[in-house]
Amino acid sequence: MDFKNYIAIVEDFPIKGISFKDITPLIGDKDAFRASIKEMAKVAEEFKPTIIVGPESRGFIFGCPLAYEMNLGFAPIRKPGKLPRKTVEKEYSLEYGTNKLAMHVDAVKKGDRVVIVDDLLATGGTIKAAIELIESLGAKVVGCVFLIELTDLKGRELFKDVPTASLINYPY
Amino acid sequence: MDFKNYIAIVEDFPIKGISFKDITPLIGDKDAFRASIKEMAKVAEEFKPTIIVGPESRGFIFGCPLAYEMNLGFAPIRKPGKLPRKTVEKEYSLEYGTNKLAMHVDAVKKGDRVVIVDDLLATGGTIKAAIELIESLGAKVVGCVFLIELTDLKGRELFKDVPTASLINYPY
Repeated sequence: MDFKNYIAIVEDFPIKGISFKDITPLIGDKDAFRASIKEMAKVAEEFKPTIIVGPESRGFIFGCPLAYEMNLGFAPIRKPGKLPRKTVEKEYSLEYGTNKLAMHVDAVKKGDRVVIVDDLLATGGTIKAAIELIESLGAKVVGCVFLIELTDLKGRELFKDVPTASLINYPY
Repeated sequence: MDFKNYIAIVEDFPIKGISFKDITPLIGDKDAFRASIKEMAKVAEEFKPTIIVGPESRGFIFGCPLAYEMNLGFAPIRKPGKLPRKTVEKEYSLEYGTNKLAMHVDAVKKGDRVVIVDDLLATGGTIKAAIELIESLGAKVVGCVFLIELTDLKGRELFKDVPTASLINYPY
């Protein structure tokens, strides 16, 4: 299946110059949604994960069905202040300003093999911070799976040691 | 399976007086997560949906695997400014102030039978607004499914005409 047929390209969203990749047509189509999760599972199986982690909130859209399909649990990465129990947090730089991610301290445990899932890999800052959070808890990130990768942004170079797969590529 | 064994009760989160129901232990446990989705699917099948809708972002955690399990598409309801194409929006009242939901105008279509999924039914304001949004697009909400219902808050009375099911009840 050519998943690109189900991605809407929206120019200048959320700001001028960005060519936004809208996944809602894909997830709204039962066959395309199903095929994308099956394809992610095929890739992710090779990494032999024990748990799936995804960042809020589009990471939940693919990460939760993937965990379900693979018969694994799912641990969310969220913005600070959303998770009610003890968390670890990680700040990272954006083009302008900074952002912060949080994870429950018991979300993953020593020995866990984690696959991180998100809809889109762009500059890689969020995923690099996620890897650092997860590994600070003693687990190992064994792979990353994305629906879309913006290859010209070279996000995967921020975490070269982690096998990374994406189902669709665009230059930017 | 007694799903309550996988819910962490966190007192005074996010503000004093709230007894927060933390679903992360449930979704982190592969068997509990799987069983909760299977149970939701059993309930939701009776409503004969053509699509699943869930509000950002915990609605994605249950709604997306449920759509996957039932071989349906999923349409997200998000905060304004997150969806890139033409949306309908609905403002609704909270205890203090107001909140707003948005949905792509093509997220559901005339004739669709929608099941709304969320982690928790409290006062029902979000779900009532979601129903109004969906029905403004010509679709019919044929059921609501929640993991948790806070029964003393009587949220379901805000949408009495819509069959509503929950897997676990707490008074508040």
